[in-house]
Amino acid sequence: MAKNKLKVVFLGGLQEIGKNMCALEYEDDIIIVDCGLGFPDDDMLGIDLVIPDVTYLEKNIDKVRGFFITHGHEDHIGALPYILKTIKAPVYGARLTIGIIENKLTEHSFDYTPELNTVQAGDIIKAGWFKVEFIHVNHSIVDACALAITTPVGVVFHSGDFKLDLTPIEGKMTDIARIGEIGNKGVLLLMCESTNAERPGYTPSEKKVGKSLDDIFLKNTDKRIIIATFSSNVHRVQQIINASAAHGRKVAVTGRSMINIVSTAIKLECMHDPENVLIDINDIKRYPPEQVTIITTGSQGEPMSALYRMAFSDHDKVELGPKDLVVISANAIPGNEKLVGNIINELYRKGVTVLNDAVADVHVSGHACQEELKLLHALLKPKFFMPIHGEMKHLIKNREIAMEMGMQPDHIFVSEIGKVLELSRATAKWGGNVPCGRVLVDGLGVGDVGNIVLRDRRHLSQDGIIVVVATVDVEMGDIVSGPDIVSRGFVYVREAEELMEELREVAKDAIDDCLYDGCVDWNEIKLSVKDSMSKFIFNRTKRRPMILPIIMNV
Amino acid sequence: MAKNKLKVVFLGGLQEIGKNMCALEYEDDIIIVDCGLGFPDDDMLGIDLVIPDVTYLEKNIDKVRGFFITHGHEDHIGALPYILKTIKAPVYGARLTIGIIENKLTEHSFDYTPELNTVQAGDIIKAGWFKVEFIHVNHSIVDACALAITTPVGVVFHSGDFKLDLTPIEGKMTDIARIGEIGNKGVLLLMCESTNAERPGYTPSEKKVGKSLDDIFLKNTDKRIIIATFSSNVHRVQQIINASAAHGRKVAVTGRSMINIVSTAIKLECMHDPENVLIDINDIKRYPPEQVTIITTGSQGEPMSALYRMAFSDHDKVELGPKDLVVISANAIPGNEKLVGNIINELYRKGVTVLNDAVADVHVSGHACQEELKLLHALLKPKFFMPIHGEMKHLIKNREIAMEMGMQPDHIFVSEIGKVLELSRATAKWGGNVPCGRVLVDGLGVGDVGNIVLRDRRHLSQDGIIVVVATVDVEMGDIVSGPDIVSRGFVYVREAEELMEELREVAKDAIDDCLYDGCVDWNEIKLSVKDSMSKFIFNRTKRRPMILPIIMNV
Repeated sequence: MAKNKLKVVFLGGLQEIGKNMCALEYEDDIIIVDCGLGFPDDDMLGIDLVIPDVTYLEKNIDKVRGFFITHGHEDHIGALPYILKTIKAPVYGARLTIGIIENKLTEHSFDYTPELNTVQAGDIIKAGWFKVEFIHVNHSIVDACALAITTPVGVVFHSGDFKLDLTPIEGKMTDIARIGEIGNKGVLLLMCESTNAERPGYTPSEKKVGKSLDDIFLKNTDKRIIIATFSSNVHRVQQIINASAAHGRKVAVTGRSMINIVSTAIKLECMHDPENVLIDINDIKRYPPEQVTIITTGSQGEPMSALYRMAFSDHDKVELGPKDLVVISANAIPGNEKLVGNIINELYRKGVTVLNDAVADVHVSGHACQEELKLLHALLKPKFFMPIHGEMKHLIKNREIAMEMGMQPDHIFVSEIGKVLELSRATAKWGGNVPCGRVLVDGLGVGDVGNIVLRDRRHLSQDGIIVVVATVDVEMGDIVSGPDIVSRGFVYVREAEELMEELREVAKDAIDDCLYDGCVDWNEIKLSVKDSMSKFIFNRTKRRPMILPIIMNV
Repeated sequence: MAKNKLKVVFLGGLQEIGKNMCALEYEDDIIIVDCGLGFPDDDMLGIDLVIPDVTYLEKNIDKVRGFFITHGHEDHIGALPYILKTIKAPVYGARLTIGIIENKLTEHSFDYTPELNTVQAGDIIKAGWFKVEFIHVNHSIVDACALAITTPVGVVFHSGDFKLDLTPIEGKMTDIARIGEIGNKGVLLLMCESTNAERPGYTPSEKKVGKSLDDIFLKNTDKRIIIATFSSNVHRVQQIINASAAHGRKVAVTGRSMINIVSTAIKLECMHDPENVLIDINDIKRYPPEQVTIITTGSQGEPMSALYRMAFSDHDKVELGPKDLVVISANAIPGNEKLVGNIINELYRKGVTVLNDAVADVHVSGHACQEELKLLHALLKPKFFMPIHGEMKHLIKNREIAMEMGMQPDHIFVSEIGKVLELSRATAKWGGNVPCGRVLVDGLGVGDVGNIVLRDRRHLSQDGIIVVVATVDVEMGDIVSGPDIVSRGFVYVREAEELMEELREVAKDAIDDCLYDGCVDWNEIKLSVKDSMSKFIFNRTKRRPMILPIIMNV
C-alpha cells in the first residue's frame, strides 16, 4: 500500500457486522480502536459469540501499538479476551472500562499478563506515530470517551458511542468545549456513530428516567418494585438506588452480570450508596415487600436471566404475584421483541403489574439523535466523513445528515469491513482490502465452526437425521449385517414403525443393487443409498432429513 | 357437563396460542367459529404450521353443525384443510372468505367434497339450537364479519377482527346500526378481539394510506415504485391500483400469494381494474420504469418472498437499483422486525430508496383501538365479557377497558384454551376443561412431530451429532470392527482430526471395558460409550453434541 498515507480499516462495527473494531495504520504503526463481540444471528445455530477476524493484525503483529477502548459495552470490549491471546498489545481505557475488562479477563487464561492502562478523559497517549486523546462523552455507561487521534496527516476524530446530556446524573456533560477546540484546529476525518441517525431531534437526558421512577415509586407505595435494566447502565442503577433511598426502600440486586457490574462500579466509585440501602438478595424477606426494590437483569427477555426465571417461577429468591410491580427500564433491542413480550405475558398471567417504555418514560437512549449528530459536524467541521457503528440503513441516514451539514458526497465514505480508506493531508480514497470476517465462538472452540458445520446444523434442525448402518462383504457381494436404521429428530418412531421398516427395505435394495452390479466404490454405494432413501422419504413425508449411510466391510 | 347450559370453549386464539378457533355447544349441537393456523415459535424447529388439537370435536363429531368463518386471514381459516378431513361439517363465510378457502382446499385431497356456503352480511344461518347472523365489519381484508349467535340462553356476540372505518375504500362501514339493535335486545356474552387493546384512540381509516400513496406517487415521478404489502389486504392493493392509474402507471403483481389473492378478488369482484392498468410481470420491460408499479409479497421480510429475492438479486424479473423506490406498506408483526430490517439494509446497499411505516403513513392497522372497543361495549351492553384473540397482555388490557365501561370484574372471563365457560340466562361460570393443544404440521405429517422429536432437533441444532459404530463379538469379548466415528454439525473435521482420533480411543476403551467386565447388555454398552464420550468432549470443547452409539453383534 501507499507510503506516507494513513490507512483506516474496520474489522467490525459497520453495516450488519455488529462488533466494533477499527485499525489505523501509518507506516510501521497500527493502533486499534475498540475490540467488540457480536451475538449470533438466528441462523448461526449453537454459536455463543462472534468476534472479528484479525488475520490482518496477526500478520502485522510487530506494528500493533495498542488497543484504545472507548467504553465498556460488550460490542466494544467483548472480543478482547480472545484477541489479546495473539495480539499482545497494551490496552488503554477509562476507569470503569478497564474495570470491566479486568473482570472479563479473569475468566480466561493467558500465557502472559495483558497490560491494562487506566486513563482519564484529557489524557493523551503516544503510540508510535499516533497521539490518542481521550475525550469525555455521555453515553448509557459511565466513563465513555470519544478519541481525537493526531496522525502525521491530520486529526481523526472517532466519536465512540455518545449523546449530549445537559443534566447528567454524575460527572460532566460531553466535553463540547474540547471538541470545539479540536474542530477549530482542523479535523481530517470524522468517524461518527450512526445508531440513532434515523431519529429526529435530541435524545432526552438520563434525568428524565429519574423523574419517571420517582413518580412510579410515589404511586406504588403498596407494592414491591422490581426493575430490570441493562447491567452496564451504571447511572440508571444509581437513579434506582437514589429513588429507593428517597422512598424508604432497601435495594437488592440479582442476576450475575448485574451483581458483577454493581460491585465493580461501587469499588471504582462510579456508583454510590450513601444511605446504605443495598442489601443482599437473601435478606429481602427481612423487610416488608413494599419497602424493597429489586434490580435485575433480563430486560431483553433473555432465557435464564433473573427476570425470566422470576416470570416463569424458577427464581429461588423471588416469587412474583399481584403485589409486585415490574418495571422494564430498557428498550427491546431489534430481534428481542418477542422474548421480552413472552416475559410480559407471563408476568400478566401471574397478576403482576408491568410498566415498560411503551407505557411510561422508563428508558432513554444512550445514542445521539439527528440534532446531536449535526452538533458534532458543526463543532468539528471535518474534511472527510465516515459513518460508523450501525446497520446499512443507519449509515446511509448518517451520510444524509452529513450532506445536510454541507459535506460533499465525494467526501463521505460508507465503508465495509476490510475496506481500506487511505488518507493524506488533502485526499481520501479507497485503497484495497485486507482479510476480514466473522469468527464464530462455540464453547471453547474459536473458529472451528464454519459454514459447513452451520449448514449441517441447520439441516439437522429442520428435519433431523437418519443413520443407516450395514456391514457388507464386497467380495462375496453380500450384506452381512443390517441395514439398521436409527433416526433422531425425524418422527416419533413409535408412530412410524411401518415407515422405518419400509426404509430398511429401500436401503437394502439400494445396497443389493450396487453389489449385484459389482460396485466396490464405497462412496458410490453410500450415494446410492442416500439418493434412494431421500427420494422415498420426500415422496412419503415431504421432508428432507439428513441421511448418513455408514457402510462397513467385514 | 351441565344440561341446559351453553358451553363456550376456545381451542385456539387465546393468549399466545395464535390460531383462532372457538366452539359453542348447547345440548346436542356444536358450532365452530373460525379455524385458524398458527406459525411455529422459534423453538419449533422444522415445523411448518401449527393447528389446533380438535380431539374434543372428533369425540363429539355427531354434534358438529358447521364452521362459521369471520374472515379470510390465515389465523382464522388456515387449519380448515387439515381439520375438514375429519370434521366433515359445512363451512359458512362471506364471498372472499369462501373464495380463499376454496383456493386453499384445492391444494389438499379429500375423500369427500367439503360443503362451502357463501353468505352475505345480514344472512342468518340456522344450525341446531343456534342461529348465526353475519354482520359486516371493517378489517384489513374485505368481507369480514362479526357474528351474532342466538342461543337458547341468550345472544353471544363474537366480534371477529374489526375496526371502525368511517371512510372505507369500497362498501360500507362496520354495521353499527345493526350492532346497536342487537345490543338493545340484550346480549348475554360479548367475545371481543384484543389485538390493539393497548393502543389509545381510534385506528385511522384505510383511506389515510391512499392519501400517503398519492403523495408518494406525486413526488417520485422519476422512479419505478415497488410496494410490498399483505396479499390479503384487498383494499390496500385496490388503492395502489387506483393511485397507479391516476398517475399513469401500469401495475404488475409478483409473489405467489399476491397473484392468487388478486386474481381471486378480481374474479369475485372485490377488486376492480377499471382502467386496465394490470399487466403481466413479464411485460414490465415494455414500459418505461417510471410508468410501472410492482405490487409484491415480502412485507414481513420472509426469506424467499418476492421482495426478499429482489433485495438479494435473486428475482428473475425484477432487478433493483438507485432508480427504484420500495414502499413497505405494512407493519412488522412482532418477531419479524429483524427479517424486515435485513431486507431494508440490503435495499439501501443497492442504492434503492425505501419508505416504511416508520417514516411515512403507509400503513394503518385493521384492528380496533381502545375507543372502538369501548364503542362495542356501549352498543352491546353485554352481561358477560370475554376478551379474545391476543396475547395475555392484550387480554388483560381488554379486560381493563371492559371495567372502565362499568363491567364488574366477576362478569369478565379471561380464558385459556380448553377451558369451558358455562352460561345460563343469568349466570356464567367456569366448568372444567376439554382436551386441547397444538398439533404440529411438518411436511405431510400432521401430529407426528412431538416434544421428543423437537427436543432432539434443538439438541442437534446446537452442537450437532457424533455417530459411533462398532461391531463386537460379545461371546469372544472382542471388537471385530470399528469403532468408527462420523460427525455432522460438530466441528469442521479437517481441523479436528486429532480430536476425532482421541474420540475413537475413548469409545474403544469404553467398549473394551464393558466386554472385559463380561457385559452383554447392549444398552449398558451404549450408555457407557455415550457417557465417556460426552464427558471427554465437554471437557475438551465445552460442547454437548448428541452422541449416537450403534453397536452391532457379529
